[in-house]
Amino acid sequence: MKIAIAQLNYIIGDFEGNTSKMLKSVEVAKNQGADIVAFSELATCGYPPRDFLEFDDFIRRADESVEKLKQASRDIAIIVGTPTVNPVIEGKDLYNSVLFLYEGEEKFRQHKTLLPTYDIFDEYRYFEPASEWGVVEFKGKKIALNICEDLWNIGNENPLYTINPMDEVIKYDPDLIINVSASPFDYNQAKKRLHVLKANVDRYKIPLFYINHIGAQTELIFDGGSVVMSPNGKIFNEMTYFKEEIKTFDLDEVMKNTRSVEQPKDKMALIHDALVLGIKDYFGKLGFKKAIIGLSGGLDSALTTVLATEALGNENVFVLMMPSQFSSKHSITDSIDLADNLGIDYEIIKIEDIYTEFIEKLKPIFKDKPFNVAEENIQARTRGTLLMGVSNKFGHILLNTTNKSEMAVGYGTLYGDLAGGLSVIADIYKTEAYQLAEYINRDDQIIPCHIINKPPSAELRPNQYDSDSLPDYDILDKVLYEYIEKRQGPKELVAMGFDEKLVKRVLRLVNMNEFKRYQTAPVLRVSEKAFGVGRRVPIVARYLS
Amino acid sequence: MKIAIAQLNYIIGDFEGNTSKMLKSVEVAKNQGADIVAFSELATCGYPPRDFLEFDDFIRRADESVEKLKQASRDIAIIVGTPTVNPVIEGKDLYNSVLFLYEGEEKFRQHKTLLPTYDIFDEYRYFEPASEWGVVEFKGKKIALNICEDLWNIGNENPLYTINPMDEVIKYDPDLIINVSASPFDYNQAKKRLHVLKANVDRYKIPLFYINHIGAQTELIFDGGSVVMSPNGKIFNEMTYFKEEIKTFDLDEVMKNTRSVEQPKDKMALIHDALVLGIKDYFGKLGFKKAIIGLSGGLDSALTTVLATEALGNENVFVLMMPSQFSSKHSITDSIDLADNLGIDYEIIKIEDIYTEFIEKLKPIFKDKPFNVAEENIQARTRGTLLMGVSNKFGHILLNTTNKSEMAVGYGTLYGDLAGGLSVIADIYKTEAYQLAEYINRDDQIIPCHIINKPPSAELRPNQYDSDSLPDYDILDKVLYEYIEKRQGPKELVAMGFDEKLVKRVLRLVNMNEFKRYQTAPVLRVSEKAFGVGRRVPIVARYLS
Repeated sequence: MKIAIAQLNYIIGDFEGNTSKMLKSVEVAKNQGADIVAFSELATCGYPPRDFLEFDDFIRRADESVEKLKQASRDIAIIVGTPTVNPVIEGKDLYNSVLFLYEGEEKFRQHKTLLPTYDIFDEYRYFEPASEWGVVEFKGKKIALNICEDLWNIGNENPLYTINPMDEVIKYDPDLIINVSASPFDYNQAKKRLHVLKANVDRYKIPLFYINHIGAQTELIFDGGSVVMSPNGKIFNEMTYFKEEIKTFDLDEVMKNTRSVEQPKDKMALIHDALVLGIKDYFGKLGFKKAIIGLSGGLDSALTTVLATEALGNENVFVLMMPSQFSSKHSITDSIDLADNLGIDYEIIKIEDIYTEFIEKLKPIFKDKPFNVAEENIQARTRGTLLMGVSNKFGHILLNTTNKSEMAVGYGTLYGDLAGGLSVIADIYKTEAYQLAEYINRDDQIIPCHIINKPPSAELRPNQYDSDSLPDYDILDKVLYEYIEKRQGPKELVAMGFDEKLVKRVLRLVNMNEFKRYQTAPVLRVSEKAFGVGRRVPIVARYLS
Repeated sequence: MKIAIAQLNYIIGDFEGNTSKMLKSVEVAKNQGADIVAFSELATCGYPPRDFLEFDDFIRRADESVEKLKQASRDIAIIVGTPTVNPVIEGKDLYNSVLFLYEGEEKFRQHKTLLPTYDIFDEYRYFEPASEWGVVEFKGKKIALNICEDLWNIGNENPLYTINPMDEVIKYDPDLIINVSASPFDYNQAKKRLHVLKANVDRYKIPLFYINHIGAQTELIFDGGSVVMSPNGKIFNEMTYFKEEIKTFDLDEVMKNTRSVEQPKDKMALIHDALVLGIKDYFGKLGFKKAIIGLSGGLDSALTTVLATEALGNENVFVLMMPSQFSSKHSITDSIDLADNLGIDYEIIKIEDIYTEFIEKLKPIFKDKPFNVAEENIQARTRGTLLMGVSNKFGHILLNTTNKSEMAVGYGTLYGDLAGGLSVIADIYKTEAYQLAEYINRDDQIIPCHIINKPPSAELRPNQYDSDSLPDYDILDKVLYEYIEKRQGPKELVAMGFDEKLVKRVLRLVNMNEFKRYQTAPVLRVSEKAFGVGRRVPIVARYLS
């Protein structure tokens, strides 16, 4: 038996586009000689559809897509994830289901049992868990069909659920598992995924076909890397990362395979490719082409510009340099060097006159109050207004250049440098930004070394450096990582050896600045815990603040 | 037996403050002769604690609060909601629990069974549902203790759960129900609540004590209105709305009561009181006193200013009027009239010079492109920058004045008039804004009638009116209500009699503008479906857009 995995990039709610892409893939799979072609979780509607699921209209359209796929299943079996209606009045209205279509009919459906409801996932918001399990027989083989999380309660130190659906299904003695997934990227996820899949194969001793999405959906980046695993736990095939691919596998070969073939998983290479895809899909799926970025001469805006150029092409990236009286000379010269390296257009607008006009007009109110964060923020907001002006005039999307360290401690101006439609590197700590720059410069010096080597500065007052008001990024980032990614509290952090005062100060900064993060752009997620939809913290609270 | 209900206003994560408030209430209840004093759901840590629950430190602190309450329970029973640790490794790490403390000990605990995971609720993100139920015996009475949603699967057309925990508990033949809740306000909620509580009493034929939170937690406003219901379904007492209260009830009197006493529930009065509390708690709990508002001469900023003045006092509200060359004369005169009526300070800053300076600097890029939304937005962002400048200089919080109709269709400038720390009326449609103005002016003309009667205009270009680019608010608001609150799709809306083209256009505007709502302030929630945490829609999608 030959099984094709179709690892595709869907658009949420684009039923016509998604269906037509799947129908084309059915033809490709047929040409590859496949008996079965498998698409991923909620492939009809895209993942995550979020509250669109609450519209009957949305579910009807998913049903229409399934009808079309049924028609295409006359001489090839199609496995596809889709939302289905729960016919029982009690419980949630929908199931997250995988269908087995063949001979123009639905032969089998299995609902998802384990509904991830943590971090970025909200599945129990919409779906009733399965309470019945079975297998589908096809061409002499019994297939266990399941969905993503259904395999993820095994091989975990902290199992989130009280049951394992495969423990029920194994009673029917299946010959293989086909799991349709929507498993978003973080830089550890590919390894965790292989670990979990292997734990399943080790337990159930049958081969496993795992089909993931690829493509970015606002902040979430699905990395592909679909897997075929032999019953001995060897990786028969790990499909490409960050690209669409349709590939057909012979079950007999999978059964007798004895060696593992794995894709490389270098952290910075993965992050780089993920961010480029994140930008590309944000623009492409929204129907935009051009990005605008404010180039400050610092590392963060340089990184964002490089990534945008890779994603969109240098003809589609435009940068503004907006020096003030507080800007260093190198802020412009370094920026021009970078723009020239990338071959992108730039303009320079000096902001001093606008700033002065603002200050002039505010004088009757400010009176003789000393220069403080108010004046600093007026500069940042003047720049934000100029960038958005160009964005509005020409239909660019403004890319935000904030890093995760700044975002965490609120070192940024709301409506100023925190403006933008998409935050490209706000899930990367400052110390990781240097590693990413190194990766980008691995062959050529794309980012001028002076941009990398200069001490970080906001340049909003004379001789200002990040280190004046923040701990060293080396220490800060470690505290932030343990607090944000690992949810270590103050006691645990002090026990790890961090200074108590510093811990208190950093945690207070993080919590006090939740109001800023609430109003910033979606952040491309590359870590296990990004700011945004996966991290939900009250603004008004009195905890560690 | 005498039972005290303590309807209190907690701060999330303020364990010391919440505990000391509860300890004082224990004394009040004792003085009222109570045998039991009941606090609400998750009273130790405040509701909703969101991802703070993922910190061991947070749970330890809740445990410490419980220890202190135990000490206070020597001669009065204390009922309190708190998160507790799930000792079993499988399943979520926590339970949402209610404890019965007496004689310095924990006598009983019941975990919550039905975990609301919809709209603004995320409880299955954190909590394992209960699988065991019981009653606690106290002074000869058997008490069924449960938590909020546990009573809400009865009396609903669309039951969300497959079980009713009270159906299990009733087997132990309880004499009364005590339900600790965290039930947020919307303008229909009080009626729904009474309906659901009555459905329970009708089914189980025993009296019911229902304890709610009061107080705002960022966007959520808890309205209090705790209820004592007699076994015949009559309302023995409905406690005050939007205020803290501790009240003791004699069970014998509750049993023999034959008449219902209900609080008035006028929609606009409720909304008004909710919004005032929402502002008051946002400022008070964050430790701020003063608000700044941009007063345009229109209805929305007038309403926001009145509400802020009621919440914070006229000495704490400062308004800026920022006319441009496109502003009408009445934009200033009307604003001054309002400021004088309220007795608040104001300043006037003309923005034309700053705007001109922006345009001048952008000329080399804009060249001879015609005036469009770019220039309009520069005016709005100039105003935003001025308002935030004052906010940053003096420590005001900027209040956002957008209404729900504008927010829905994206009729507002990101980082301009959409700026602010809290959106006061963004859950009120424009047509409701007029009703709220009427309510505010019910005795005196606080809002000048010219502000109410003039045609809505953004005044960002000559002779511009909302009606130029938007359908009449009368129709627009109806479509929006059916789409947003009632999740009616395009087919359903057309079937209701709305024009198909109009429906398509409005739905497209709503979906296209999700990116703006993502970046705006938290919205005080007064309807069944507010923008913000309770409505989760992808930015990048191709559905009705």
